[in-house]
Amino acid sequence: MSAKEEDVAVGDGSLGGFESVEKILEAYIPPDKLAHVQRILYGWNCGKPVAPLPLARELAAAAAAANFDLQAYRFGAAPEQLRPLRIMRVGLVQHGIQLPTSAPFAEQRQAIHTRVRQLMDAAGAAGVQVLCLQEFWPCPFFFCTRERQWLELAESAEEGPSTRLCQELARKHGMVVISPILERDEAHGGTIWNTAVVVGSNGGVIGKHRKNHITRVGDFNESTYYMEGNTGHPVFETAFGRIAVNICYGRHIPLNCQAFGLNGAEVVFNPCATVEGFTEPMWGLLHVCHQPVGTEVYPAPFTSGDGKPAHRVGGGGGGGGGVDLGPFYGSSYVTAPDASRTPSLARNRDGLLVADLDLNLCQQVKDRWGFQMTSRYEMYAEQLARYVRPDFTPQVIRDPAL
Amino acid sequence: MSAKEEDVAVGDGSLGGFESVEKILEAYIPPDKLAHVQRILYGWNCGKPVAPLPLARELAAAAAAANFDLQAYRFGAAPEQLRPLRIMRVGLVQHGIQLPTSAPFAEQRQAIHTRVRQLMDAAGAAGVQVLCLQEFWPCPFFFCTRERQWLELAESAEEGPSTRLCQELARKHGMVVISPILERDEAHGGTIWNTAVVVGSNGGVIGKHRKNHITRVGDFNESTYYMEGNTGHPVFETAFGRIAVNICYGRHIPLNCQAFGLNGAEVVFNPCATVEGFTEPMWGLLHVCHQPVGTEVYPAPFTSGDGKPAHRVGGGGGGGGGVDLGPFYGSSYVTAPDASRTPSLARNRDGLLVADLDLNLCQQVKDRWGFQMTSRYEMYAEQLARYVRPDFTPQVIRDPAL
Repeated sequence: MSAKEEDVAVGDGSLGGFESVEKILEAYIPPDKLAHVQRILYGWNCGKPVAPLPLARELAAAAAAANFDLQAYRFGAAPEQLRPLRIMRVGLVQHGIQLPTSAPFAEQRQAIHTRVRQLMDAAGAAGVQVLCLQEFWPCPFFFCTRERQWLELAESAEEGPSTRLCQELARKHGMVVISPILERDEAHGGTIWNTAVVVGSNGGVIGKHRKNHITRVGDFNESTYYMEGNTGHPVFETAFGRIAVNICYGRHIPLNCQAFGLNGAEVVFNPCATVEGFTEPMWGLLHVCHQPVGTEVYPAPFTSGDGKPAHRVGGGGGGGGGVDLGPFYGSSYVTAPDASRTPSLARNRDGLLVADLDLNLCQQVKDRWGFQMTSRYEMYAEQLARYVRPDFTPQVIRDPAL
Repeated sequence: MSAKEEDVAVGDGSLGGFESVEKILEAYIPPDKLAHVQRILYGWNCGKPVAPLPLARELAAAAAAANFDLQAYRFGAAPEQLRPLRIMRVGLVQHGIQLPTSAPFAEQRQAIHTRVRQLMDAAGAAGVQVLCLQEFWPCPFFFCTRERQWLELAESAEEGPSTRLCQELARKHGMVVISPILERDEAHGGTIWNTAVVVGSNGGVIGKHRKNHITRVGDFNESTYYMEGNTGHPVFETAFGRIAVNICYGRHIPLNCQAFGLNGAEVVFNPCATVEGFTEPMWGLLHVCHQPVGTEVYPAPFTSGDGKPAHRVGGGGGGGGGVDLGPFYGSSYVTAPDASRTPSLARNRDGLLVADLDLNLCQQVKDRWGFQMTSRYEMYAEQLARYVRPDFTPQVIRDPAL
């Protein structure tokens, strides 16, 4: 049994031995009923259906040989007369760690680089134009430990080894790469940030965005390591369209999601890292989401702040057999503004999801629904300005009979 | 065949001959797999499961006799040491129109009053403390017609016949009633509003809320009849807890939903009226939602602004057999802040959904997730103030290689 099988526990029993909800639905529900379930739960056949996107046969063979889930879909939009058709082919990568967390850091990072290079090359071969890696992709998701030694893994956003790898592959494939890392900002005393670096299709760094809202829940009080970002809500104008990156917990803050939209983002990527019992029922309520797979086991015990004993290698919180942090549940997917969405990638395997997005759909949905005219932003600007004052009084109408 | 069966077309073929997605899942998926599907899609067994709530046996018999769907559930929360347990039993009513839209208005309204009285009495017998009726419940949902004569059906919020009915039943059952109507505001020149009247458990009118965001999409440009509300985001402090009403399309405006929360709402009701092909895939992404059932047929032709011929009685847009506006798809449900939710009421029958809500869950979820501390409202107050200026410039970082 390899280190990965033993310690990373991909596909362990707590993932329920199934790949995805969609596969269960397809396996058991008769086709006429399934069509209704998919229409209601996934927005299929309402607006434009999410159709399979044919990829070259070699790609499927390569994915099977390299043991990762490969799925591809396309979202349509109505034809237009005056605006050119703009299709952005996006890719999402999900993967587990590749070596035990007790291996030397350089080897751990190198092993992840090797695996992600393989997935990025597959994306390039599939014609992906904008590829997004998962949150904090070059390392284990060690925030639960609250230990300091992991910070050695933080990197320069502009010239760290993970940025250099992304630049190499961006140039090789003419592909924009979004690379979420733990950033070490040497220009400001070595400040740590949770940062997404955006590499342009010619290999240059376009810019970066630092996570706006910091998780402080369950095993993840990430302000142990880094603080709220100071980069606003930037939209990156790339060769293929205007993109933004909403990192992990920021998906739970509606104002954060909206701010990227107000700045003109056409596609918002949401790289995440989150575990099964914690957030899985909220997962389908969100948007372009993706995140790791597998369970990570740490060398030292840590507690979860839930009154239970410390997690330990080979026993601990998650049940017998060395389950510790996780399982991360993969399940990457893409959704469109008309509420249609792709199926999820596997919950328990590395994967690459490819999707063609007709960017004209963004304006079409806004023009159809009129949100840009009906949202009364003036009212909310005023309301929020009042709310943040210490003397804010909520608008409450009390039953006079009480 | 009664007028209802013939013209209202409840349960017609376009509803797919099935009652709900949940019933399909339960019918076909084996129990071990179903548990995972329900965990992920409905938040069951994650946090507190949504458990069936036992009701008196007579109630089920009465619901069967009166041909409405009756379901009841309860949401739990962790026990606390210092705050008292506060359970609010809420009820949602969904129903179709009861007479053809060509019947005299007084008879149409009376027939709906009779049916809704039956459902409200059932709610009272089930111990419901806060009952919400569907959007614009005393009338057909005539906005598609853009005809003026329907405005005769508008009523005074304070003393119209529908308010009086709700006051009578509120007193009878000691139950708060939320009554969404089309309001005629005589004090302001007969202005029309889309208004929810909140009647206290002693029968007095606590106050009212007017819909903040107006639908202008598909068959529903409702600003033909009424304009944006001027009542802010009131929270009504009732004998059983603090409630707010987010009317229909307002569910699509995240700032609107949030504003009720910032004013301290513990439960937000979202009475709706919307039709199958239009919004059903978005329905599960929302919250305490409910709305009519059945298809409404109007005497005069109307167009949908979609390039297709006018809808007509006995033919028209929705397929053969007199289908015109609709079908409304019922599917009322309740969801909690931990992302758990009840199953939906039937898509094609009148119904009453009863749910016990442990109100302490609201603060528990906020304390667990920390949204009240991590949301950085100051940043968004400032951002929105900038956004609403005509000279707003989006924050865009352009790839310098372009």
